[in-house]
Amino acid sequence: MTDGESGPVLHLPARDIPVPASLSPQAQAIVGMGPLDATEYPALDDKDAWRTMIADRDAFIVSMVGDRLSDVPADVAEEVVDGVPVYVVTPDDLPSDDRRAYLEIHGGAFITGGGEPCRIMGLRAVGRSRVRTWAVDYAMPPDHPFPASVNDCLTVYRALLRDHDPGEIIVSGASAGGNLAAAMILRARDEGLPLPAAAVLQTPEADLTESGDSFQTNLGLDNLLTASLMPANLLYADGHDLTDPYLSPLFADFTKGYPPTILITGTRDLFLSNTVRLHRALRAAGLQSELHVVEGAGHGVFLGQAPEDEEIEVEVRAFIDAHWA
Amino acid sequence: MTDGESGPVLHLPARDIPVPASLSPQAQAIVGMGPLDATEYPALDDKDAWRTMIADRDAFIVSMVGDRLSDVPADVAEEVVDGVPVYVVTPDDLPSDDRRAYLEIHGGAFITGGGEPCRIMGLRAVGRSRVRTWAVDYAMPPDHPFPASVNDCLTVYRALLRDHDPGEIIVSGASAGGNLAAAMILRARDEGLPLPAAAVLQTPEADLTESGDSFQTNLGLDNLLTASLMPANLLYADGHDLTDPYLSPLFADFTKGYPPTILITGTRDLFLSNTVRLHRALRAAGLQSELHVVEGAGHGVFLGQAPEDEEIEVEVRAFIDAHWA
Repeated sequence: MTDGESGPVLHLPARDIPVPASLSPQAQAIVGMGPLDATEYPALDDKDAWRTMIADRDAFIVSMVGDRLSDVPADVAEEVVDGVPVYVVTPDDLPSDDRRAYLEIHGGAFITGGGEPCRIMGLRAVGRSRVRTWAVDYAMPPDHPFPASVNDCLTVYRALLRDHDPGEIIVSGASAGGNLAAAMILRARDEGLPLPAAAVLQTPEADLTESGDSFQTNLGLDNLLTASLMPANLLYADGHDLTDPYLSPLFADFTKGYPPTILITGTRDLFLSNTVRLHRALRAAGLQSELHVVEGAGHGVFLGQAPEDEEIEVEVRAFIDAHWA
Repeated sequence: MTDGESGPVLHLPARDIPVPASLSPQAQAIVGMGPLDATEYPALDDKDAWRTMIADRDAFIVSMVGDRLSDVPADVAEEVVDGVPVYVVTPDDLPSDDRRAYLEIHGGAFITGGGEPCRIMGLRAVGRSRVRTWAVDYAMPPDHPFPASVNDCLTVYRALLRDHDPGEIIVSGASAGGNLAAAMILRARDEGLPLPAAAVLQTPEADLTESGDSFQTNLGLDNLLTASLMPANLLYADGHDLTDPYLSPLFADFTKGYPPTILITGTRDLFLSNTVRLHRALRAAGLQSELHVVEGAGHGVFLGQAPEDEEIEVEVRAFIDAHWA
């Protein structure tokens, strides 16, 4: 250790890290691919460059996961709910009297994942929820920064409350979608709306200031998130204070109430600290919250391609089944 | 990534890791101390050198924590239970009709922590259990290798069962003590004894083969466990197969039954993988198990010296209160 500008600094030597042999072969293949993403972000004010980058990334997402989900037995309706576009995904075998609603908020660093990727993620979410699922195609930067995205999610939640008991609604999101799901619930709470039955927050981007230790310790180990996401955070925040709980739900006062949550991360996740700190914040407020950490996994477990992902799906399904009203 | 002998290898460059500013000042001070331990292990067959090292380490433990626990309001009786020395710690304010028993199995890499450190750890455990606590001073290498330590713990558990309903007994251990607690419960189960009400496994040394990813990824980040413990593991195993579930409980078949468990680790813990893998193994078997991961913490959270430690004590007390019969 030596003293740096803001305190002691630990000097870690260069190291060679093998692929953990205990992982499934599929997970080992994912980890063994090395860094999958090498995003270079545009300058904050170059909106056209952002639009190009976003379009490229969305096309990549669709090419990666589109085919695998084309045979999900469900109907997708494109609806507009109080002005917000939503993909409403209904499983083919859903009984007509099933009133439950799964509100799915897609990820994508607050900038990608809209449109076709949102439709695809809605289909994927039905495999988890097995009920009618509302995948919100919320507005995003560069044209619609904070709080547009949270507003859109809240609009859809408010609309669902017109036709559902709150105990019939579960809110879910991964990554930036986990941030928005968590922030939307805070907004709903603070505006006096009833809370949903539960929340599913997978590797949530809970702290846009990136103060978590894993932003340092897992840098280079997570092969999906390979760098700070701060440029996208700043584009999204649009000059607002990043410590605002509606931007960084980690900093909320959870003693004012929050629904039961399930939190999922991996030991190599750049958002490991985001996730375990949110778990501790919820627990410290005396709330129901369960944490699952997948060995060797980076952001988003193993991209849905390994038995370890299915094991987590089993956990999430058990959690949501236990929390529907 | 390049291909190593057993697959792809990730080359991580040297890095400077700051102390996380989000931790409590006390925790920052612990992390900022840098590596606290630089054990050099003797040759496996040099028993005298092991004895010297063990005596030195035990003296260090006593000097570190002895004073802080001298004022715990409890009585300590040195008993011998069916041939096994046990410190029986009774809180001063315990009602005479409280029949509950907390079986505390000390840590220390299977070699240290006996005698006076065991007495001290028993006192510390009473702060958590608030009931009569049996701190087992089990036999250890170099003179008494596997399975002597597990046998001694099982002897005391068996003795407790004579006077207690199993639902009145909770078993607890940290580090090597977490291994022994977990292994003892497996032994009890496999010998047809009733299971205890619950188990508290803090940063358990669940896998003596050290196959977990965090043995690589957190090497140099955990400032208490700064190197592989394999020499002590081999001394303890005494030639037995390290994958034997009584040596490495991670590899047990938990579908045959296991009590509810609480598991605790930290993001920098060398045993992060030990802990989260054991959690997943228990959950995959459909068992009750809850996981808590402390931001920035190495092995043993922050040595009991930070508010983060107290927060975990609150979790453990809530867990055991919920699981007594």
